[in-house]
Amino acid sequence: MIKLGIIGFGGIGHYHATNLIKRVDGIEVGGVFDIDPDRIEEAEKLGLRTYRTREEILGDPQIDIVLVSTPNDVHAPIALDAISAGKNVMLEKPAAMSAAEFVCIKQAADSAGVFLTVHQNRRFDKDFLIAGNVVSSGALGEIFSIESKVWGCNGIPPGWRTQKRNGGGMLFDWGVHLIDQMLLLVPEKIAHIYCDMHRFDGSDADDCFKLIIKFDSGKTALIDIGTKNFQPAPRWLISGTSGAMVINDWSCSGSVITAKSTDVYFEQEIVYTAAGPTKTMAPRNKLTLSENPLPDVIANGTEFYTNLVAALCHNQRPVVCHDEVIRVLRVIDAAFLSSESGKTIALDL
Amino acid sequence: MIKLGIIGFGGIGHYHATNLIKRVDGIEVGGVFDIDPDRIEEAEKLGLRTYRTREEILGDPQIDIVLVSTPNDVHAPIALDAISAGKNVMLEKPAAMSAAEFVCIKQAADSAGVFLTVHQNRRFDKDFLIAGNVVSSGALGEIFSIESKVWGCNGIPPGWRTQKRNGGGMLFDWGVHLIDQMLLLVPEKIAHIYCDMHRFDGSDADDCFKLIIKFDSGKTALIDIGTKNFQPAPRWLISGTSGAMVINDWSCSGSVITAKSTDVYFEQEIVYTAAGPTKTMAPRNKLTLSENPLPDVIANGTEFYTNLVAALCHNQRPVVCHDEVIRVLRVIDAAFLSSESGKTIALDL
Repeated sequence: MIKLGIIGFGGIGHYHATNLIKRVDGIEVGGVFDIDPDRIEEAEKLGLRTYRTREEILGDPQIDIVLVSTPNDVHAPIALDAISAGKNVMLEKPAAMSAAEFVCIKQAADSAGVFLTVHQNRRFDKDFLIAGNVVSSGALGEIFSIESKVWGCNGIPPGWRTQKRNGGGMLFDWGVHLIDQMLLLVPEKIAHIYCDMHRFDGSDADDCFKLIIKFDSGKTALIDIGTKNFQPAPRWLISGTSGAMVINDWSCSGSVITAKSTDVYFEQEIVYTAAGPTKTMAPRNKLTLSENPLPDVIANGTEFYTNLVAALCHNQRPVVCHDEVIRVLRVIDAAFLSSESGKTIALDL
Repeated sequence: MIKLGIIGFGGIGHYHATNLIKRVDGIEVGGVFDIDPDRIEEAEKLGLRTYRTREEILGDPQIDIVLVSTPNDVHAPIALDAISAGKNVMLEKPAAMSAAEFVCIKQAADSAGVFLTVHQNRRFDKDFLIAGNVVSSGALGEIFSIESKVWGCNGIPPGWRTQKRNGGGMLFDWGVHLIDQMLLLVPEKIAHIYCDMHRFDGSDADDCFKLIIKFDSGKTALIDIGTKNFQPAPRWLISGTSGAMVINDWSCSGSVITAKSTDVYFEQEIVYTAAGPTKTMAPRNKLTLSENPLPDVIANGTEFYTNLVAALCHNQRPVVCHDEVIRVLRVIDAAFLSSESGKTIALDL
C-alpha cells in the first residue's frame, strides 16, 4: 500500500484525501501537514494522521510519495525539500512558477532517483476525451481552428489566487490545464503565441485572458478563460474544412455538423438574408449538412491515480511526462511576456 | 433630383438600383455601365439607361454622382477618372486596397472640389445599433472585451472574391464593415493589432480571420469572420466588469445579464460542479444576476442614402468621414502585415 503524504490541505488537498485517493486501490493517505492549524484540525477530524512540521512529514519513513498542494509559489522549495528527503513527489498544477523552476525540480529528482509527477488530471475530463475522439476521427476534414474556453462570472475567490507573487491568476489556475490539453490535441510544432490579459478589482493576477497558439502547420488554437464573463461560451469549438464540433458545457451537450459534399452551391445572385444582401454569409441549405451527436466516451476520474500506482509499483510509464510539463510552462512563460510586451512570442517548441 | 451613375452592375450595384435608392426621395439612377454585356442587358431589362464605355457615363453631364461598385482593385482608377471628370463619387466598401490608395483618391477629390463618400451601410444595421445602445448605457460596468463575429459555411463564392489581387477575401469583404463598426463603438487610441488568417481551396485570399484590436485603455476587441464555420457563434458578445450582452444572430435575439451586486459570495470550500472541483468556475447563484431583454432600436436601412442626399443638397455633414475610412484601412493594412509576419503591429491611431 502506497502512503501519500499531503503538504497543503486546502480545498484541493482535501479533495485528494476524501475523493480521488479513495477510488483507487493500492494507495492511501499516510498523513497531512499544513501551516494553518485549522487545516490540521480538519484533517484530524477526518481521522488522518497529522504532523507539526514539514520536516516531520518528510522525515517519516512510512510516507512513499508527497503531494504538494500548496499555493503555487512554494511548490518548488517544498518539492526540493521532499526530494532531498528521498521522497517521490506529486505536484499539483501548475508544477512550478516557470519552466526554469520546474527544470530545477526535475534535475533534483533525476539526481536523487525519485519519482516526480504532476497532477494534470484534466487530461481525463470527459469533454477533452470527446474532443480528442472527434479530432482523431477525421470527421471535420482538415482542422484549422480549435477554441477551448472556460468562463465564469464569480471573479477569483479572495486569497492567494488573486496574487501574482503566489502564482495566482487564471493562466496558472485553469490555463495550465487547457494548454496541456491543447498541446496533446495538436502534437505539432508551435510557431508563436499571442496573449491578452485583463486584471480587475486591483488584483495583480490575471482574471481573464485570451491565448492564441499558432502552430507551424497553420492551425490556430484559442484558449480563453474568464472570471467576469456573464454570458456563456461553448467549452470547445473545433472547426475543420468540412465540419465543426461544439461541446457547449460541462454536461457535454453538443454536436458534430459536417458537409455532405464540399461542392458548394451558390445562388446565382445575392441572397437577401437577415444579414442584408450576401452570398457568402447566406444560410447554407440544411440538406447539404449532417448533424450528428457527440461520440460517447467513458471518463471515471480515477485514471490519473490508477496510473500513478501502476507507475510506482509496476514501473508503468507515467501518464504525464516531464517534457510535456516543461512545454506547457514555456507557453505560460511566453504568454506572460506577450501580455506584458504587446508582442507575439516566437517559440521553437 | 440627384442622378446616380452606377459603374459595376454586379449583385451590389443591382441592390443599390433596385432596392436602396428606391427607398429615398431626391435621388434616382441616372444610368449604368459595366464591362460585362450580360450586366448591361440586365440593366436595360430594368429600364435603366446604359452606356457603352466608362468615358461615356463619366462624360454625361446629367450624372451627379458615380457609385463605384466594381471589384475592389479597380475602385481607385475608376474613382480617379470620375473625379477628373468632375463627378462626385460614392465608393463601395472597401474604399480602396490600402490606406495609401484611399489617401490618393481623397486628395484628388479635395483638389477637384468634388464630394467623396464610402458606402459603410452597416453602421445602420440593427445589431450594431443595439450594441452601441448597450455600450453607451453603462449597464455592463467597465467594458473590457467586445467580440464581433460573422460566420458562414459556404466558403467564398467563386470569382474575384477569392483572388487577393482583386481585393478578395473576408478582411476586405466583411472585415471592413466590422472594423468600421468596432472603431465607432470604441472611439479610443489603438495600441496594437494581431491578425491570424486561414486560406482554403487553393485561394490566395483570406477565407477566415481572427483580428484582435488592443486599445490603449486595455479594452480588447476580437473580430472573427469565417466562411468554413459549420457551428454558429454569437454575432456580438460584449463583456464588462458587471455584466455582459449577447446578440445571437441577425434576428437580434439575445440578452443583457448583469450582476445585482459586485460583492461576490464564495462558498467556504470548493464546489463540486460538472467542471470538477472549483470555486472560481462554480455556477453563480442566479439570485445575484438580472437578465434583461436587448433594447429595441429602429433601423430602416435608408439612413445612408438619406444622409447622402442631405449632404449633397443641403451641405449636411456626411455620415462617413474620410479620416474614419483611412483609420479602418490602416487597421486592414496592419492586419495583412500581422498575418504575414506572425507579429503584432503597433499602431498610433
